[in-house]
Amino acid sequence: MYSVTVRDHFMIAHSFRGAVFGPAQALHGATYVVDLELRRPALDPDGIVVDIGLATQVLHEELGRLNFRNLDELPEFAGRNTTTEFLARVVFDRLAQRIAAGDLGPHAVPGSATGGLTALRVSLQESHVAWAAYEGPLVAA
Amino acid sequence: MYSVTVRDHFMIAHSFRGAVFGPAQALHGATYVVDLELRRPALDPDGIVVDIGLATQVLHEELGRLNFRNLDELPEFAGRNTTTEFLARVVFDRLAQRIAAGDLGPHAVPGSATGGLTALRVSLQESHVAWAAYEGPLVAA
Amino acid sequence: MYSVTVRDHFMIAHSFRGAVFGPAQALHGATYVVDLELRRPALDPDGIVVDIGLATQVLHEELGRLNFRNLDELPEFAGRNTTTEFLARVVFDRLAQRIAAGDLGPHAVPGSATGGLTALRVSLQESHVAWAAYEGPLVAA
Amino acid sequence: MYSVTVRDHFMIAHSFRGAVFGPAQALHGATYVVDLELRRPALDPDGIVVDIGLATQVLHEELGRLNFRNLDELPEFAGRNTTTEFLARVVFDRLAQRIAAGDLGPHAVPGSATGGLTALRVSLQESHVAWAAYEGPLVAA
Amino acid sequence: MYSVTVRDHFMIAHSFRGAVFGPAQALHGATYVVDLELRRPALDPDGIVVDIGLATQVLHEELGRLNFRNLDELPEFAGRNTTTEFLARVVFDRLAQRIAAGDLGPHAVPGSATGGLTALRVSLQESHVAWAAYEGPLVAA
Amino acid sequence: MYSVTVRDHFMIAHSFRGAVFGPAQALHGATYVVDLELRRPALDPDGIVVDIGLATQVLHEELGRLNFRNLDELPEFAGRNTTTEFLARVVFDRLAQRIAAGDLGPHAVPGSATGGLTALRVSLQESHVAWAAYEGPLVAA
Repeated sequence: MYSVTVRDHFMIAHSFRGAVFGPAQALHGATYVVDLELRRPALDPDGIVVDIGLATQVLHEELGRLNFRNLDELPEFAGRNTTTEFLARVVFDRLAQRIAAGDLGPHAVPGSATGGLTALRVSLQESHVAWAAYEGPLVAA
Repeated sequence: MYSVTVRDHFMIAHSFRGAVFGPAQALHGATYVVDLELRRPALDPDGIVVDIGLATQVLHEELGRLNFRNLDELPEFAGRNTTTEFLARVVFDRLAQRIAAGDLGPHAVPGSATGGLTALRVSLQESHVAWAAYEGPLVAA
Repeated sequence: MYSVTVRDHFMIAHSFRGAVFGPAQALHGATYVVDLELRRPALDPDGIVVDIGLATQVLHEELGRLNFRNLDELPEFAGRNTTTEFLARVVFDRLAQRIAAGDLGPHAVPGSATGGLTALRVSLQESHVAWAAYEGPLVAA
Repeated sequence: MYSVTVRDHFMIAHSFRGAVFGPAQALHGATYVVDLELRRPALDPDGIVVDIGLATQVLHEELGRLNFRNLDELPEFAGRNTTTEFLARVVFDRLAQRIAAGDLGPHAVPGSATGGLTALRVSLQESHVAWAAYEGPLVAA
Repeated sequence: MYSVTVRDHFMIAHSFRGAVFGPAQALHGATYVVDLELRRPALDPDGIVVDIGLATQVLHEELGRLNFRNLDELPEFAGRNTTTEFLARVVFDRLAQRIAAGDLGPHAVPGSATGGLTALRVSLQESHVAWAAYEGPLVAA
Repeated sequence: MYSVTVRDHFMIAHSFRGAVFGPAQALHGATYVVDLELRRPALDPDGIVVDIGLATQVLHEELGRLNFRNLDELPEFAGRNTTTEFLARVVFDRLAQRIAAGDLGPHAVPGSATGGLTALRVSLQESHVAWAAYEGPLVAA
């Protein structure tokens, strides 16, 4: 299995609800350093996993929808705790949609003639001592 | 699959027996920077993989049993080479026991009503150029 | 010159005022990974720069005053942009006070019989691509 | 599953062919920081995954065949784009051959009496924001 | 003294002349991860060392003049060994020029009414085990 | 001022005497990741700070005198606490001697015709959250 990973980051405010979160129930914030790992069993016709320039750009666009925001005010997260693991899944789902839509190029689309990407892993590092991730397969449309 | 990872460290003395260890047969020591990765396929009712505060505390307690010790003198390691990979397994087993005992909360217990944790990965970094890990499933009691 | 450095972190929400801050004028947040470097020209009677346990504890206490807070609501920062460089200075000043008060032990007090600490450097890393610092001398009371 | 990882690096020049590579079609170069992860389900008779000294030495030898070279001039890569993911596979294949030949010791040979290594992962970091990897099983001869 | 640091990278090919360089006399290449540290004794009217967005952009522009190039072919380096330390100085000089020209804003210009930047440090990391830097004062025009 | 830094590590056992050391009074150990920074105001005739191959080799030799040892048994440390800051100074002094003896080449000797190295900084990282350093000038013989 081949993989390529690109790194970027975003900075947000949020608060959590539930006694399990202790002092993190107050409004605070975080920097998330994001690693997007893209996987496929065989290289595409260009000898690559993915166009790394496109992958970097699309990751930056998707993180830009979250960057410099108060997540407590975003309608799509209403009633949800935007924990690190939850956000890893959000980024995973958004990247999976972009890949399926062809935004990382035709060879990256799952189930394309050249195979396409088969799995993603999205990791969010919140400090030098804690991080979370979500990984899963990509399915052909 | 979701995961959360927390990092801590411990510092020990030990020696190895066997020609394969070369100069490491002498009494020496190491700092091990430990990454504990906890996995589950679905988030618990609080929207998390695990209570990260509890995970950090329990990891610290278990590493505290090894920290500032000469491993050659610990009865539980008598006759064993306490290599990095061996110690990764030791930490894995001790954390698995703590999780099964409910010390990371009821939702973390393997096979609990909310699913529980399903796997762990314990990595010990011994220098900037070498590390070892042990990973495996957690089974319901 | 000798130095000892300890690392910790804190997570906050804040916003900035001024066109120079662009999208960071909105309420957002950050994780700051903090490195506290303590300096002195000669070791103390115990052969150390400082009691590293005390330094770690006092740094954690001072960061605890900021951790999980919305800095926009703290009276001491009213009317100020809590930029990374500004916060580095805040942490520097607070640590300098604690050191002068003897909270890192008598040998750490600037101008003490054993010399004491002579300088600090406080670095705050806000992401994998940006950080800020404040450093300066410690003066005897 | 146990694993041991060792790190080394190499520095090369190369160019790429194909519009997808943009400005990287020009002759340029890279430092690749290489992580070689070796896996097996049970430890060998010495209580280790592999002789870490031998693993470090053999990795260094294999990277030495690439280090300080212009990859565009190496006959074995003629007509190929030596992308990071392609090179990860090259290093994987060369290490797999060395392991099968017994160069990491008899206990490391796949399918040996003591089980042997069962899988490798080779990761090449090309910058602080991008890396690629190839992983796969090792098969007994 | 305050400082702000931003990180970027560039990837080049080059060769060295002189027996001291050993195998690095052959055409090879490197990734350089660049840290640009900007210093001033007091914050500017916005409460910052420098507009971090501008600093990031101007660093990227200057590294873009080197990125994906064969340094052996650049006229400005003719007859020079483009060692890591030499390149650190090149980047230092180019950034100093941009700062003097006002490209990091009026408050960053050395000797400006608000003081301006007083020093730079440029560090180039060529691998996980080696880096070089050049630092020096900025002088008012 | 120019600088070049090289990294290596060593692994030792030791114990400390004095209540200030708490549980570290027991025999334990550490991995020290060592950064050796060499400084000079102007490059030598080869356009470098120092022959990085020689610097790497000599650092490795000096760390080899400590690696895989129980520092409590080394006569040169009798009656001393081998703290991280103390060891940083030991490595500094030994490297300074090697440099003065010409082991990093004639251009590195302080006060040589080409200027020579003028200062060193030796940093020892003992964990992901703590390190110590010693720096000072090199004087011509």
